[in-house]
Amino acid sequence: MFGKTIKDAPKDEVATNAKLLIRAGFIRREVSGVYNYLPLGIRVLNRISNIVREEMNAIGGQELLLSSLQNKESWETTGRWNSFDALFKLTSVLDHEYPLGPTHEEVVVPLAKQFINSYKDLPLAVYQIQTKFRDEKRAKSGILRGREFLMKDLYSFSTDVDQHEDFYNKVAEAYKKIFHRMGIGDRTYMTRASGGSFSKFSHEFQCLTEAGEDTIYITDEGKKEAVNKELGEDGGEGMRAVEVGNIFTLGTKFSDPYLTFKDEKGESHPAFMGSYGIGPARLMGVIAEAFSDDKGIVWPKEVAPFRVHLISLGQHSVLANRVYEKLVALGIETLYDDRDLRAGEKFADADLIGIPTRVVIGDKSADTETLEAKERNSEEVRNITLEQLLNELKG
Amino acid sequence: MFGKTIKDAPKDEVATNAKLLIRAGFIRREVSGVYNYLPLGIRVLNRISNIVREEMNAIGGQELLLSSLQNKESWETTGRWNSFDALFKLTSVLDHEYPLGPTHEEVVVPLAKQFINSYKDLPLAVYQIQTKFRDEKRAKSGILRGREFLMKDLYSFSTDVDQHEDFYNKVAEAYKKIFHRMGIGDRTYMTRASGGSFSKFSHEFQCLTEAGEDTIYITDEGKKEAVNKELGEDGGEGMRAVEVGNIFTLGTKFSDPYLTFKDEKGESHPAFMGSYGIGPARLMGVIAEAFSDDKGIVWPKEVAPFRVHLISLGQHSVLANRVYEKLVALGIETLYDDRDLRAGEKFADADLIGIPTRVVIGDKSADTETLEAKERNSEEVRNITLEQLLNELKG
Repeated sequence: MFGKTIKDAPKDEVATNAKLLIRAGFIRREVSGVYNYLPLGIRVLNRISNIVREEMNAIGGQELLLSSLQNKESWETTGRWNSFDALFKLTSVLDHEYPLGPTHEEVVVPLAKQFINSYKDLPLAVYQIQTKFRDEKRAKSGILRGREFLMKDLYSFSTDVDQHEDFYNKVAEAYKKIFHRMGIGDRTYMTRASGGSFSKFSHEFQCLTEAGEDTIYITDEGKKEAVNKELGEDGGEGMRAVEVGNIFTLGTKFSDPYLTFKDEKGESHPAFMGSYGIGPARLMGVIAEAFSDDKGIVWPKEVAPFRVHLISLGQHSVLANRVYEKLVALGIETLYDDRDLRAGEKFADADLIGIPTRVVIGDKSADTETLEAKERNSEEVRNITLEQLLNELKG
Repeated sequence: MFGKTIKDAPKDEVATNAKLLIRAGFIRREVSGVYNYLPLGIRVLNRISNIVREEMNAIGGQELLLSSLQNKESWETTGRWNSFDALFKLTSVLDHEYPLGPTHEEVVVPLAKQFINSYKDLPLAVYQIQTKFRDEKRAKSGILRGREFLMKDLYSFSTDVDQHEDFYNKVAEAYKKIFHRMGIGDRTYMTRASGGSFSKFSHEFQCLTEAGEDTIYITDEGKKEAVNKELGEDGGEGMRAVEVGNIFTLGTKFSDPYLTFKDEKGESHPAFMGSYGIGPARLMGVIAEAFSDDKGIVWPKEVAPFRVHLISLGQHSVLANRVYEKLVALGIETLYDDRDLRAGEKFADADLIGIPTRVVIGDKSADTETLEAKERNSEEVRNITLEQLLNELKG
């Protein structure tokens, strides 16, 4: 496989997620704040994206793909061409200027305007999983905050605030499912935060982690609710957290007077909008940080790059090949380490990469027809038969 | 579904593919040479990408994801920072300059250098399906040649020309499979062309179409081989064609002296490289143009956005809902038109969108318990039972 583990953390990275993911062979830095995803890395990114996609489809989100090169005029119309923080501006050989999309309100509103006429067209929710660009002044957080990063951004259009709130709540529930499926549900809090220029409040989903840029006060541990320190409300215990998702009420800021619909009486109103973000790349970094120990990463099963890390030792490649073929035939995604290296090096790599189940074929296997199985999140090494292993993995 | 058909072709488009795809609700223009993909459009784009992905994986290609913001220094090293045609250059708020990737040799070579040491690491092939940017002076070809477009680019690394040619031939065969699966195999010719600055020849896969930018001479109809007019060789009948794929021998232009490996004797050599492109967005445009009639698009089954276009007429929505649920339960992707419109309008939309099989539930269905089925590429309307339909679709 393309990619290699390295023993020492790269000296030019300060963020734990970047150190871990580079050492384990998931990513490599291109320039500051910009990363290339190696085969291991894109597998995790795709798993995370697919979980997000499934849950967005389940609440009626329709997937589309909007462009990175956007229309400058649309940004002038909203007044954000000169005011948006960290907007990359590109000038072409023909002297055209393009904003390089950090977000897509300016694209999706003119687009939706072509298709929304009547209240019958609402509510409507469209989303994409697409690369965003931000001209960040600092980029020291690895893939938690980069200059180029993958985002899911969903935009909703409703007739009024009530219809909007119904959908807003659906997204909040979908987000909770997403974070639970990824294994960070019990440390992620739906957090009230400032609504920015759009409305009084918004909600952030904040995942507890020492690397977090935010401080939250937990207001209800059972319901997993919190409030962002930025609101200046009474605190309690402050916890460091990183924002893994957000939901914004945009109201009619972007739609009035451009994007209107006719109600039952034929009267025109601006559509009531919301926007909802989740960053798969950031999530990958958060999960790597949250689930790691001094040996490396400990991927939750749903986002792991492979299900099984198969290691052959010594002269047992025939048996190992047979096990590998069996696993693949059953659709169990397996990383097969058949390199001619010492056992210790292979084990260290397996711990660093963090695939949930390690399976070793060594001398004992040939003698006893058993495999050595070990979960990444446990110290217990078990000798089990291939059949037992397959039953466990299918279950 | 988000998106609508429109009767008249947009006045600001000259290319047939853009006219068709915009009218049928697959894409919308953002700015000149840049398009947004609506839900119908992204479904086709994903189908095409997945066919490409499967065939690249089958020949041992490893998928990764390289960044769009690249390292200027790498482009200065290869000498292409000032010489590359149509390179977008971006300046950050910190006055850093970034090339916005039109291709990825400058990224993949420094990356591969970290992982290639020995002849045992070769041959190696990595690819991505990722968005490219080109600062085109003209952009009048719709999605055939845009300023932002999806590309599959694969890079191979070999020990020498022989190992390279083995892999080069594998890619050529994989490309033929890809074009056959997409329904354009019988009109696509493996065409000798200039190798540019890299080597004497390259191969293009040219698909016959009136909108083509190239002229090719067919040299062997049976083997589907041709030569590009640009080579100045003896002609025969010149045909207009569009390049849907290319394979380049890069040799050691990008690797010497940066990317070397040690042979069996411990001697260093530069890796021998090739690059191999296919544009899923361009293919979508080519297929739309190649398979269309005066009523609209006629998608081949393997790339169609849906398998079935289900239309309910009049008061038969209960029966139509039942058919829809049955189709979905069997995993048959179905676009369900339950809008309250005249039959003629619904039929015209179905023809314009071009899904392979149209199924109509109307008055007759309720009386005779049969459905009306019609293939998009045939005039025959058949009255069949639901069971017959399901058997045909499964087959």
